[in-house]
Amino acid sequence: MSRTLFFTSLLYRSTTEHKRAIAEFCSNVKMCRLTEQVVFSDPYKISQYNRWTAPYLDEDAEAVRQDNDLKLEIAELKAKFCERAQALLHGDLHTSSVMVTRDSTRVIDPEFAFYGPMGFDIGAFLANLILAFFAQNGHSNGEDDRKAFKRYICQTIEETWSLFEQKFIALWNEHRDGSGEAYLPGIYNNPKVLQLAQKKYMADLFHDSLGFGAAKMIRRIVGVAHVEDFESISDPGKRAACERKALDFAKLLLKNRRSFVQIGGVVRAMRQVEE
Amino acid sequence: MSRTLFFTSLLYRSTTEHKRAIAEFCSNVKMCRLTEQVVFSDPYKISQYNRWTAPYLDEDAEAVRQDNDLKLEIAELKAKFCERAQALLHGDLHTSSVMVTRDSTRVIDPEFAFYGPMGFDIGAFLANLILAFFAQNGHSNGEDDRKAFKRYICQTIEETWSLFEQKFIALWNEHRDGSGEAYLPGIYNNPKVLQLAQKKYMADLFHDSLGFGAAKMIRRIVGVAHVEDFESISDPGKRAACERKALDFAKLLLKNRRSFVQIGGVVRAMRQVEE
Repeated sequence: MSRTLFFTSLLYRSTTEHKRAIAEFCSNVKMCRLTEQVVFSDPYKISQYNRWTAPYLDEDAEAVRQDNDLKLEIAELKAKFCERAQALLHGDLHTSSVMVTRDSTRVIDPEFAFYGPMGFDIGAFLANLILAFFAQNGHSNGEDDRKAFKRYICQTIEETWSLFEQKFIALWNEHRDGSGEAYLPGIYNNPKVLQLAQKKYMADLFHDSLGFGAAKMIRRIVGVAHVEDFESISDPGKRAACERKALDFAKLLLKNRRSFVQIGGVVRAMRQVEE
Repeated sequence: MSRTLFFTSLLYRSTTEHKRAIAEFCSNVKMCRLTEQVVFSDPYKISQYNRWTAPYLDEDAEAVRQDNDLKLEIAELKAKFCERAQALLHGDLHTSSVMVTRDSTRVIDPEFAFYGPMGFDIGAFLANLILAFFAQNGHSNGEDDRKAFKRYICQTIEETWSLFEQKFIALWNEHRDGSGEAYLPGIYNNPKVLQLAQKKYMADLFHDSLGFGAAKMIRRIVGVAHVEDFESISDPGKRAACERKALDFAKLLLKNRRSFVQIGGVVRAMRQVEE
C-alpha cells in the first residue's frame, strides 16, 4: 500500500507524468460510479438496494438517513473521492482482496482502480478489520473465547497504520531529492520544515483514512453489500447487536475523525463502544 | 465566474461528464506547470526568475524563503492546484484578463484553462484588487486624493465575493433537482441540510479563495511577474513601502485564512495593515 500510493503520487512523480496517468484512468468511470452510489449515496437515502438486519436495525438505518451532520461529512468525502487525484488507488481494497501466504502477499480484483484520495484505500482495509472486531461477540460461546482474537485484530489495525506511515515516510525521505514535485528540495530545504510537512501530510491522510473507513463501515451495515463477519452470525438479534455497535462507532468516527491523533486512540475508542 | 464554475462542477454535472472533461484538459500540462513554478515554488526558494524592489525588500524576500509556516500552507495549496479537479478554471483570471464596457464583460487569454480548485480563479481576481488597494499610497500626492478610490476598491472586493456567493447559491438552488451528482436530492432532502451543506461548501471555497489569492499576491511582489499598480510607482522607496504592506497582508492571509468568516473582515484587516 505504501509503495503503490507513494510511487503514483506527486511525492515521487512530476506533474506531467501525473496528469498523463490521471487522464488514462478517467475512463474507468463506471466502477467509480458504482462506488459513489453504494458508499457515498445509498446508505443516506431510501434505496431499493439497501438492506439491514430488520426489524432490529430499522431505527438505526432511519437515523442514518436523518443525520444531517453525517450527510455533511459524507458530502465532503464524496467530493474528495470524485475530484482529488492524489494517487493510483486499488479502489476496493477490503481484506478479501488481499491474498496472503507465509511468504507472499498478492492483491486481486483491480477493476476499480483509478486516481483518487489515498485515504480511500487505507480506510477500506482498516474498515474491514474494525468490522471483524465488532463481529466477534456474535461468534462467541459466551465465555472469553474471542478475547485473544480481538486483541490480534486490534494489533493488526494499529500495525497497519503504523507500518504504512513508517514505510511511506521512509520512501519519502529516500526520494526527497528525486523527481517528485510536491515538495521541491529547494523549498523544503531544512530538516525542520520537511519534518513539519510530513507530519501535516500524514495527519491529513490519517483523517481521510478514518473518514473513508467509517463510510465503508456504514455501507456494510445499512447498504447493499455486507461482510461475512456479520452475515455468518445466524441469530439475527445477536447479529444486529454487533452491527449496531459497529455502526455507532462508524458514525462517531466519521463525525469526529479529526479529533484522533494516533491509531492507538482509535482502537481505544473501538473498545469503549464495544464494551 | 459563478456560471462557469457552477456549470462545470459536480453541482451541475454527472461524474461521467466531469471525468470526460477532466481527461480532456489533462493535456494542458505545460501552462499548469508554469503556474506551479511561478506561484507555488519560485517565491519560496532561490530562483533566477525572482525579482523584487531591491535593496528595500531584500530582507522581506529572504523572510518568505525562511518561513516554514508559509511553506506548509503553500504546499497544501499546491497539492489542491495539482490534484483537485473541482471545476473548469480560467487559470489566470487577474483583472487584466477582464475586458469591460458599460454593456458587456469579456474574459480573454484562456490558455491556462484546466480543471482545478475554484478558489484559484476567485482568489486571482481578488488578489489583483487587493494589490491595487495597497498601491494607492504610492500614487498619492500626499493628501487624501486616493481615499475615494480606495473605498471603491474595497467595495469592489466585497461585492466580488458577495455577488459571486449569491449568484452561485442561486444557481445551486435553481438546479438542485437536476443532473448534478454532488448533492443528490434524495439525500439533501430537507431545507435545513441543504442550507448547512451550502454554508459549509461556501466557507471552504472562501478559505480556498483567500489562500490562493494570498499566494498570487506574494508572487507578484517577490516572484517573476509583477503588477502595473506597483511597477508604475517610480520612487523605489515609496514602491517598496507599499509592496511590503501588501506582502505582510498576504502572509497574514495565507496563514490565517481559515479565521476569516466574511469578506468584510478581510477588507477590515487590509485597512489595518495599510494604516
